[in-house]
Amino acid sequence: MPTLYHHPMSAASRFVRLILAEYGFQTELAEEQPWENRRDFLALNPAGTLPVYVDDSMRALCGASIISEYLDETHGVLKRDRRLLAEDPFQRAEIRRLTEWFLQKMEQDVTRPLVRERIFKLQMTSDQGGGPPDSKILRNSRANIRQHMKYLSWLAGSRTYLAGDRLSYADLAAAACLSVLDYMGEINWTEAPQAKDWYQRLKSRPSFRPLLAERVRGVTPVSHYADLDF
Amino acid sequence: MPTLYHHPMSAASRFVRLILAEYGFQTELAEEQPWENRRDFLALNPAGTLPVYVDDSMRALCGASIISEYLDETHGVLKRDRRLLAEDPFQRAEIRRLTEWFLQKMEQDVTRPLVRERIFKLQMTSDQGGGPPDSKILRNSRANIRQHMKYLSWLAGSRTYLAGDRLSYADLAAAACLSVLDYMGEINWTEAPQAKDWYQRLKSRPSFRPLLAERVRGVTPVSHYADLDF
Repeated sequence: MPTLYHHPMSAASRFVRLILAEYGFQTELAEEQPWENRRDFLALNPAGTLPVYVDDSMRALCGASIISEYLDETHGVLKRDRRLLAEDPFQRAEIRRLTEWFLQKMEQDVTRPLVRERIFKLQMTSDQGGGPPDSKILRNSRANIRQHMKYLSWLAGSRTYLAGDRLSYADLAAAACLSVLDYMGEINWTEAPQAKDWYQRLKSRPSFRPLLAERVRGVTPVSHYADLDF
Repeated sequence: MPTLYHHPMSAASRFVRLILAEYGFQTELAEEQPWENRRDFLALNPAGTLPVYVDDSMRALCGASIISEYLDETHGVLKRDRRLLAEDPFQRAEIRRLTEWFLQKMEQDVTRPLVRERIFKLQMTSDQGGGPPDSKILRNSRANIRQHMKYLSWLAGSRTYLAGDRLSYADLAAAACLSVLDYMGEINWTEAPQAKDWYQRLKSRPSFRPLLAERVRGVTPVSHYADLDF
């Protein structure tokens, strides 16, 4: 069975897990602490990033965008109206643009620093950079959330799904990212009712269930985290 | 005619210009100063990043990976043995992994900070963050170059082209990145003879010529920059 190296608080890992679940794939999950720079893990992915997908022939695919393109080419293409990337090249470009937005831009501006400061640093040793969160980083990252939520609300308000009429990688990427931030109670949903409606729909999909049941050491999720009707 | 918004010192822009030249595309080049956050440019690409490709129907494609996938789907697929992405999904994944390595990981560790400190800040106003380079950032970025050059040398020494037997996006991405660093004299070629052999081959391609003729305000390129036999 293929193995997915992941971390529960990695938005990119959650994105790939959602794709695999939507396509009905069985994979073994192996939790990786990316700050440990484990030698065997670096041999799989010299960049040291998550997720990494290792297929039955022990070939490694590194990173969310590479795994998602591979899954589209080898499986999505057969899924007809359940395919998570479009047929049309320009529509594919729009889905990829939004997927990048949430897994790279929002990741850099908001998700990565907040997860690192609030969750990873609790588990890191002081040699690894562990310790109390840096309040300046928390403040800056939180200030960036509002802009991203405004954009998400605009997308959710003007389209059925984020990239158009059908569920796509763009929705799974955004929902993966939002679910990590929501776990930590960082989202003010009352300010973003259209984004909330869209997220409620995503969160109710069977593919989401395993994510909502997961807990990380040291940080309890916000009370509405697993609530489908929050 | 399509337009490519670019900056001469943006590795991602150079990468797309190389693809377009390899495929024999004519495009109009529009130079964009990304730190200006020009309103009309942000309307094309809300993320504010380069390059942006605007086609004849005025549809915008934002970012190197999205443009390169689109060009593969609409043109590369017809190029047979001159195609810059492979046919096989796993080989495509390897090309994408290396492309990301140079345009994202090396960009973040080395290229972006060095270009910002040494070139962009000369042209920015003080409101925009302009001023003298930060010596700590220069030192850190330069310390990261060695590791990346080691990896590039290993790839160049063990394969004809970086991702295998044929020229691919991986070579164009790495060469785009290296050419920006070489312009600034940041590469110590004597330490990396295998990388140098590979770069010499890339640099001699006709697609490279326009890049080698370009100059940016305030910074003269290192003497061997345009020399094919350096």
